[in-house]
Amino acid sequence: MQRCKFEVNKVDAQTRARLGVLHLTHGDVQTPIFMPVGTQATVKAMSPMEMEEVGTQILLSNTYHLFLRPGHELIRDAGGLHHFMQWNKPILTDSGGFQVFSLSEMRKIREEGVEFRSHLDGSKCFITPEYDMEIQEALGADIAMAFDECSPYPCDYDRAKAAMGRTHRWAKRCLGAHTRQDQALFGIVQGAFYKDLRIESAKTLADMDFPGYGIGGLSVGEPKPIMYEMLEEIEPHMPKDKPRYLMGVGSPDCLLEGVERGIDMFDCVLPTRIARNGTVFTKYGRLVVRNQTYARDMRPLDEHCDCMVCCTFSRAYIRHLIKAGEILGARLTSYHNLHFLINMMSQIRSAIAEDRFSAFKREFLENYNQNP
Amino acid sequence: MQRCKFEVNKVDAQTRARLGVLHLTHGDVQTPIFMPVGTQATVKAMSPMEMEEVGTQILLSNTYHLFLRPGHELIRDAGGLHHFMQWNKPILTDSGGFQVFSLSEMRKIREEGVEFRSHLDGSKCFITPEYDMEIQEALGADIAMAFDECSPYPCDYDRAKAAMGRTHRWAKRCLGAHTRQDQALFGIVQGAFYKDLRIESAKTLADMDFPGYGIGGLSVGEPKPIMYEMLEEIEPHMPKDKPRYLMGVGSPDCLLEGVERGIDMFDCVLPTRIARNGTVFTKYGRLVVRNQTYARDMRPLDEHCDCMVCCTFSRAYIRHLIKAGEILGARLTSYHNLHFLINMMSQIRSAIAEDRFSAFKREFLENYNQNP
Repeated sequence: MQRCKFEVNKVDAQTRARLGVLHLTHGDVQTPIFMPVGTQATVKAMSPMEMEEVGTQILLSNTYHLFLRPGHELIRDAGGLHHFMQWNKPILTDSGGFQVFSLSEMRKIREEGVEFRSHLDGSKCFITPEYDMEIQEALGADIAMAFDECSPYPCDYDRAKAAMGRTHRWAKRCLGAHTRQDQALFGIVQGAFYKDLRIESAKTLADMDFPGYGIGGLSVGEPKPIMYEMLEEIEPHMPKDKPRYLMGVGSPDCLLEGVERGIDMFDCVLPTRIARNGTVFTKYGRLVVRNQTYARDMRPLDEHCDCMVCCTFSRAYIRHLIKAGEILGARLTSYHNLHFLINMMSQIRSAIAEDRFSAFKREFLENYNQNP
Repeated sequence: MQRCKFEVNKVDAQTRARLGVLHLTHGDVQTPIFMPVGTQATVKAMSPMEMEEVGTQILLSNTYHLFLRPGHELIRDAGGLHHFMQWNKPILTDSGGFQVFSLSEMRKIREEGVEFRSHLDGSKCFITPEYDMEIQEALGADIAMAFDECSPYPCDYDRAKAAMGRTHRWAKRCLGAHTRQDQALFGIVQGAFYKDLRIESAKTLADMDFPGYGIGGLSVGEPKPIMYEMLEEIEPHMPKDKPRYLMGVGSPDCLLEGVERGIDMFDCVLPTRIARNGTVFTKYGRLVVRNQTYARDMRPLDEHCDCMVCCTFSRAYIRHLIKAGEILGARLTSYHNLHFLINMMSQIRSAIAEDRFSAFKREFLENYNQNP
């Protein structure tokens, strides 16, 4: 009952980096891939046409937010999320588990499911793994995620183990409840920052034969080396022929480190969030274009970028827009940042294809760690 | 010393509506025309490419705002407003007079000029007619406006008369100070709501031989019939061969009434302001798409519109975006509203060309005054 097909076409000679293709209902996705986040059925400040322009192959939307507003039934009746937001390429919806644990109020976790209050209006909600599947099937993304319990950092062993156990039982219930043949359901590896738990989780979920796997509960505040160490431990225990998705990670350095450790998929709000605050990625690192330094700088955001924004507008103009609180400012920085990460992933794929991933990574970071 | 050329190619047989072409440094403008407002060197929520897509021929930017932020010298050094904001078609800058009187704090009007404090940071500024010309020449729009004193509604006769007199003396000083040959300087008719003052103002300014005339101080809170009456009184005293610009007016009914009374140019923030609040123009009147009624409405904003937004997105989706505070919501409603007014003006021009303006107006308002 494979709802998506994944091919690994090449593994890097020196690292665990892999080149693949993920065949989904709404099209193929070249991996490794960065998925921009459209939390509320829109990638903030961007139109779907612009998402295509910047080269987006797949985007992520948040089940928790859409469940609360406008509601999954409304989206189902509107023809599903693709039609509702007019995005005809692949979509992945998360399970909402992470948001229930990070955004909602007064949550009570029971074996049956999670009771919580909406962060929007305080209304009481109860989500079970079965109901989560119903919601995600109504949204109709190409990939749905199993409902999981995400542990915080730090988290004591017993609590992490309990959350992992529940995540596994819930994963089984999700598998049982999920019915849509045109939607792939991915399991999520948990286990906090305990190697034995992470390995146990990877093995347990592998036995359930999901068509793909998320790695949850990382990038939740821990130092980056700890995240990288966890990835190294988990990787050997994950099926080689299934896509691996490192959830919530999207800074350029983490993307490189993740790819090096065998990760195929990433998502993060980082590029659009920092964009709205006036920070952009450049070849030579992050540039805070809202700074006074750039008030009269007529150069593009990134002199080595060929995106529409860098071909058209100056730092001086974009700084003015950001300072003045103009929507176009957020649009231009968001566009550039998404283009930057998507283009970077494309370069990573070329590097893997040509057996020069390590050299690419070294050179990229040498440039990126300078000050723009 | 005509800095722009204006041709009236046709006058309507039944009304005073006229069809013309305004030849400016950055291109020709077909009149009657609606000018979208880009207060801070951007039409809120829109990109310059989208401004072209919706058919913008000329846009307006606000001298007061640009003077305060980012500063006219910065814009001059950036190559002028056209280059700064990457808009290569005509631009008109207002004089800032209206904003000094409506937005600034602690203003003191003297014969020499106006002292005020910035609404942004409270800093003290002093603008004279001569300095205003320097600022507008630095911005480098195709059309600059003379620095005027705008009276409120209501306003007693003596105060209105004094403001008018100062406006005339300042207009003369602007003419004397203005030097750019590639920029047209328009005078502004004032006189509040007193027919004799309005006529005196129109005649006095006509004698100064400006290449075009604004009508200021209307649409400042008075009932619409009073504005229409004023226009009827002023029109016979304005030069027939110069463009007439009714400042700050842009609702569909006022555009029709203005055109009927011989107005060639209009500007208003209305279409983009109401858009951001979730209200759109449709053939059958204003539609508040943020209302619950449209939560599941899969029709376009306006079923009779062929703009990109109406060809792509549903009311249900746009309502969701507006309710969720998403930038894309403001983008889509702004785009549609600008397209609506610009397309309406294009239809008005065709109607005048074909001697059916009155019929067009009647039919338009019959539809527009229904409830969508």
